[in-house]
Amino acid sequence: MRDVAIIGVSQTKFGELWDSSFRDLIAEAGVKAVMDAEVEGDDIEAMYVGNMSSGLFVDQEHIAALISDHMGLNPIPTTRVEAACASGGLALRQGIMAVASGFHDVVISAGVEKMTDVVDATPAIATASDQEWEAQQGATFPSLYAMIAKRHMYEYGTTREQLAQFSVVNHKNAKNNPNAQFPFEISVDKVINSTMVADPLTLLDCSPVSDGAAAVVMVPAEDAKKYTDTPIYVRASAQASGTIALHNRKDLTTIDSTKVASRKAYEMAGVTTKDIDLAEVHDCFSINGLLAVEDLGFAEKGKGGIAIEEGQTEIDGDFPINPSGGLKARGHPLGATGIAQAAEVVWQLRGDAGKRQVDGAEIGMTHNIGGTGGTAAVHIFGRDLE
Amino acid sequence: MRDVAIIGVSQTKFGELWDSSFRDLIAEAGVKAVMDAEVEGDDIEAMYVGNMSSGLFVDQEHIAALISDHMGLNPIPTTRVEAACASGGLALRQGIMAVASGFHDVVISAGVEKMTDVVDATPAIATASDQEWEAQQGATFPSLYAMIAKRHMYEYGTTREQLAQFSVVNHKNAKNNPNAQFPFEISVDKVINSTMVADPLTLLDCSPVSDGAAAVVMVPAEDAKKYTDTPIYVRASAQASGTIALHNRKDLTTIDSTKVASRKAYEMAGVTTKDIDLAEVHDCFSINGLLAVEDLGFAEKGKGGIAIEEGQTEIDGDFPINPSGGLKARGHPLGATGIAQAAEVVWQLRGDAGKRQVDGAEIGMTHNIGGTGGTAAVHIFGRDLE
Repeated sequence: MRDVAIIGVSQTKFGELWDSSFRDLIAEAGVKAVMDAEVEGDDIEAMYVGNMSSGLFVDQEHIAALISDHMGLNPIPTTRVEAACASGGLALRQGIMAVASGFHDVVISAGVEKMTDVVDATPAIATASDQEWEAQQGATFPSLYAMIAKRHMYEYGTTREQLAQFSVVNHKNAKNNPNAQFPFEISVDKVINSTMVADPLTLLDCSPVSDGAAAVVMVPAEDAKKYTDTPIYVRASAQASGTIALHNRKDLTTIDSTKVASRKAYEMAGVTTKDIDLAEVHDCFSINGLLAVEDLGFAEKGKGGIAIEEGQTEIDGDFPINPSGGLKARGHPLGATGIAQAAEVVWQLRGDAGKRQVDGAEIGMTHNIGGTGGTAAVHIFGRDLE
Repeated sequence: MRDVAIIGVSQTKFGELWDSSFRDLIAEAGVKAVMDAEVEGDDIEAMYVGNMSSGLFVDQEHIAALISDHMGLNPIPTTRVEAACASGGLALRQGIMAVASGFHDVVISAGVEKMTDVVDATPAIATASDQEWEAQQGATFPSLYAMIAKRHMYEYGTTREQLAQFSVVNHKNAKNNPNAQFPFEISVDKVINSTMVADPLTLLDCSPVSDGAAAVVMVPAEDAKKYTDTPIYVRASAQASGTIALHNRKDLTTIDSTKVASRKAYEMAGVTTKDIDLAEVHDCFSINGLLAVEDLGFAEKGKGGIAIEEGQTEIDGDFPINPSGGLKARGHPLGATGIAQAAEVVWQLRGDAGKRQVDGAEIGMTHNIGGTGGTAAVHIFGRDLE
């Protein structure tokens, strides 16, 4: 199989974008990625798009054909991939496979979600959980993650303040991200005293309902320098499935799919956690960011809270997490998140991340979760191939 | 890239399956395919599943994780692919790519749709069209295809009877298909005098609302004989996009995506239309079956109706179409259709199709459409690799 390089990335502003329709968002992300890659639209040979629930959010399925039509990409193969909030990560992976295999040479993987055109996004989001065993019984995502948080606090002594601190660091980073939904700082007190959502999680532990899109353009590694002086290489692409419902888990405080996918990714890339200069992790709730710190191997199980409290996840810490602001503060348009994570890592590895730049970053990771861990996609990128 | 072989296939009964839930259907199809392939569940390295709209039909997204969990496949990568009614064809293609590329050795591609748990399936189906330009203006799929039919009749003198005859042949074949939703014969008179849906299409020109699932198991061609004496080889896998909305088309009576994908498939397989011993085509409405006869190259543009009238598409005709009964009479659980088509071709090429067997079939084709042609997937299979 061929090695793969990313030559162009983009992200729209994330937020409540009342003036942008579903197709506006994808058009903006697509055009910006193609321009960043300095290719022509005609060069694109295939497209994958990650999207969780355009059917429930905007009454539109068949979106890959819609996008292809709207963007003038016909008649190339265009395919939607769905895995709840990991849809973007899986679209990225399918695009990588399409190039690695030799099926196609120039592939665009995008992600998009338009969530604000419905009165209440919660029922649509709940379809990422087990409908029969969770959603229909009244469990929403905040409540599922709240149970995980309670258990983590009980088993490991994780504190309310440590959880809150994860959001605080995200916001601190987002301040320097022009595409972030919430580019301003918050405090631990503010998090703890914000509206209760599902005990112990308050409003500021939760990622928002967002509109947005992102895209990456990929080519075979051997061709990358023809397009750009700063290609970023895909070192690993791994995906794993885990139990979709919480009641089936041996351990509530571990996301097995994250562990399996990340171990596989480390092996593929020939690196260990210590080699990762920054990671964009899936903090749909503060507790999930904390679990990622542990399950990806940055901290021992049960020590994630302490690592966050000690500042190890900050941009100048031992293992910078979410320099973009993460799902919490960059925003979380579900299907776009996995692609936006990759875009951030590419900007970081190019050294183009401005005031949120992780100094000398050479290897970066993305971690994208569906539901409460039914799906995990982990990617590792590098400035070099080895 | 490696050649790919199919070593196991399955299809549940298609119909209004009140006793089978979404997860029952996929479990039945999965288990039967694995048994047919004589592999163990543990051998499966990745799964793709085609499904159009589980979100709107059963309030459940993230179905690949759900299925993985329910079938005991964790932690392998499992991915949902969506392209409206072509979802199955694209899941098949992603599975083929996963094996061809060397990413995985034993891959299952499945398709499923549970459509009868909603009061009215029409609004969900309409999300396969362009929501802003078609569905919201009141256009349903029967009305879109009715416009195509009217235009075809106007331009080429296609008769009402010729359209009806396509349904008649489908039902004749379905009589011998134990998995078919409507295993009984109908007459041209009965079609024409059935309830009007959208002039000129009556009820018996339309494929039904169905529940069902299907699955195929694939391995590298070089390993196939280890599993079975009768592997069926993938000779071509092609996909194309076309305009999602009808108003953008130069010619209402041609599905461009079918033409592009089929020409590519013929080239990949090194065959012409004349070499195809049977084709399973996407007759969601009788007119679309007729268009397929033309756009796949079996008959000249405008002559599809005559070919059908003359019996050329019957099992003993010049180019047998839909020996399974097609979408009209086998049933059309949207995401399952593309996979069920492949299962039928495999049974035919193995010589296992019983009373609906096409004598001496060596090369077969599947043709799977999303919407009114926004997506097309065309596959060619053979008893031999060349």
